Amino acid sequence: MKTRIISGLCMVPLLVLVYLGGYFITALCIVIGFMGVNELFNGFNAMDVRPSRAIAYGSMMVLYVIGVLFPMEHEFIIAWLAASVMASSIYMFKINERKIEDALATMLGIIYVIFFSYHVVMIDRTEIYSGLVWLVLLSAFCTDIFAYFTGVFLGKHKLCPNLSPKKTIEGAIGGTVGSIVCCGLFGRFLLPVVSGVYSAAMPDMTVHCLIIGLIGAIMAQCGDLTASAYKRKMGIKDYGTLIPGHGGIMDRFDSVLFTAPVVYYYIVLVLM
Amino acid sequence: MKTRIISGLCMVPLLVLVYLGGYFITALCIVIGFMGVNELFNGFNAMDVRPSRAIAYGSMMVLYVIGVLFPMEHEFIIAWLAASVMASSIYMFKINERKIEDALATMLGIIYVIFFSYHVVMIDRTEIYSGLVWLVLLSAFCTDIFAYFTGVFLGKHKLCPNLSPKKTIEGAIGGTVGSIVCCGLFGRFLLPVVSGVYSAAMPDMTVHCLIIGLIGAIMAQCGDLTASAYKRKMGIKDYGTLIPGHGGIMDRFDSVLFTAPVVYYYIVLVLM
Repeated sequence: MKTRIISGLCMVPLLVLVYLGGYFITALCIVIGFMGVNELFNGFNAMDVRPSRAIAYGSMMVLYVIGVLFPMEHEFIIAWLAASVMASSIYMFKINERKIEDALATMLGIIYVIFFSYHVVMIDRTEIYSGLVWLVLLSAFCTDIFAYFTGVFLGKHKLCPNLSPKKTIEGAIGGTVGSIVCCGLFGRFLLPVVSGVYSAAMPDMTVHCLIIGLIGAIMAQCGDLTASAYKRKMGIKDYGTLIPGHGGIMDRFDSVLFTAPVVYYYIVLVLM
Repeated sequence: MKTRIISGLCMVPLLVLVYLGGYFITALCIVIGFMGVNELFNGFNAMDVRPSRAIAYGSMMVLYVIGVLFPMEHEFIIAWLAASVMASSIYMFKINERKIEDALATMLGIIYVIFFSYHVVMIDRTEIYSGLVWLVLLSAFCTDIFAYFTGVFLGKHKLCPNLSPKKTIEGAIGGTVGSIVCCGLFGRFLLPVVSGVYSAAMPDMTVHCLIIGLIGAIMAQCGDLTASAYKRKMGIKDYGTLIPGHGGIMDRFDSVLFTAPVVYYYIVLVLM
C-alpha cells in the first residue's frame, strides 16, 4: 500500500511534464531511456553479461537527433534499428573478451528500453492525436492500481505463481476493466480539453479510447510480467534504488514500455 | 578454391530468381529466412540456448503477409518489429523452463535473419530502383572474391587473427576496391538494361553505385565477421550442410544479410 502511495506521489512531476508536452516529453523519455538502460545493464552485469553502454547510448543519441531532423519519417527509424543491431553484433568482434550474450543484451537495451520509450515522443509528434499520450500512462497505471485493489479484495486464483506469486486472475480482470473504464471516461470528457486546438478536427474518440484501454491493459500486464521475468533470471529483486526501498525507473515504467507502442501503432495504423 | 567454384555454381539458380524478380525474389527470401533461422537456432542449440522456432516462423509469416497487404508502408514494419520483440519476451513467461538467452536468441533470429533478408524484397518493391537489387549480391560476392584473390597473392598483414585467422588487411582492401569497381561498372552499363521501362525515368546512377559499392563492401565484411563471431561462440564451424562440406545457407548469405539493408536505406533515404 505504502509503495503505491509513494510511487503515486513520484508521478506528480511526471504528469506536469506530460501536460507541458513537446520538449518536456522528449526530455522525460531521454531520462527514462538513459536510466532504464543503466538499470537493465546493471541487472545483466549481475548475471555476468556485459552489454555495451557506449553502443546503447550512442544509438540513443542518434535516434533523438533523427527525431529532431526527420520527425514522423518511419524509414529513418527502421534504418536506425537495423544499424543498431549491426553495431551490437560488431561489438562481438573482440571475440576473446566478449560473449554472444553481451551483444544480445545490448540489442535488448536498445530496442526494449530506448526504442519502446521513444514511442511516447512519436505519439506527441502526431499533433492532432498527441492528446492520446495520456492513454499510455492511464492504461498502464489504472491497470496496476485496479489490479492491486481487485486482487486484495477478491483475489483467489493465482495468475502465474512461478513468475509473479502475488498476482491473481481476479486482479488481472479487475485491472483490465479499470483500464477500459478510465480510458473511456478520458476519451469522452478529458481528451477534447487536453487536445486544445486539435479537438475541433477530431471525431468522437470514446470507442477508440475504450479499445486502447483494453489492448493497453493486456500489454501493460505483459510488460509488468516481462520485467519480472528478466529480474528473476538476473537474480535481482528491483532494477534500481531511485526511490529507496521502492525500486528504480524500470520498476515504475515496465508497463509503460509496452503500452506506448500500443497507443502509437493504434494511432498510425488505425486512426491515421 | 574448390569451395569458391562450387559455391559459385550454386549461385546460378539464385541469379535466375533475382533476374525474374517479384514473387520469385519473395520466394527466395522466404527460403533464406526459413532455412537461415533453422541454421542459426541449431547453432544456438549447440550452446544450450533454445530459441522459439514457433515465434520466429510465426513472426516471419506475419511480415510477408504485411508486405503483400501494405507494401512500402514502413509504419507496419516497425509495428511488426516491436510486436516481435514483445512476443519473444513473453516467451520467457514459462520461467522455470526458459532462459533469458532463449528470448534474446529468438529476437536475434527475427531481426538478423528474417528482417535483414526481407530488405531484398523491399528493394524489389521500390519499382523504379528495383534494378539495384543486383548491388546486394554484387557488393557481397565481389568483395568476397576479390578479397580472396588479393589475400592469396598479396596478403601479408592479418586483419583479425582471433576472429577469422585467414583474412588479411590486403584482402580487405582488395575486396573493397573490387566491389567499388564492379558496382560502378554495373551502374554505368548494366543497370539501364536490367531496369527496362524504368531506365528512362532514372538519372545516371554510376556515382551512386560506386558509393553503394564502397559502403556495401565494408558492411559485407562486417556481415562475414559477424557470422564468424556467432559461429565461434557457438563452437560450430559451419551453420549447416546444405552443400556437403561447404556450409549452409547462412554461410553463403552472411554478407548479403548486411548488404541488403545498405542498398535499401540508400534508396529510400538518399535516392527517393
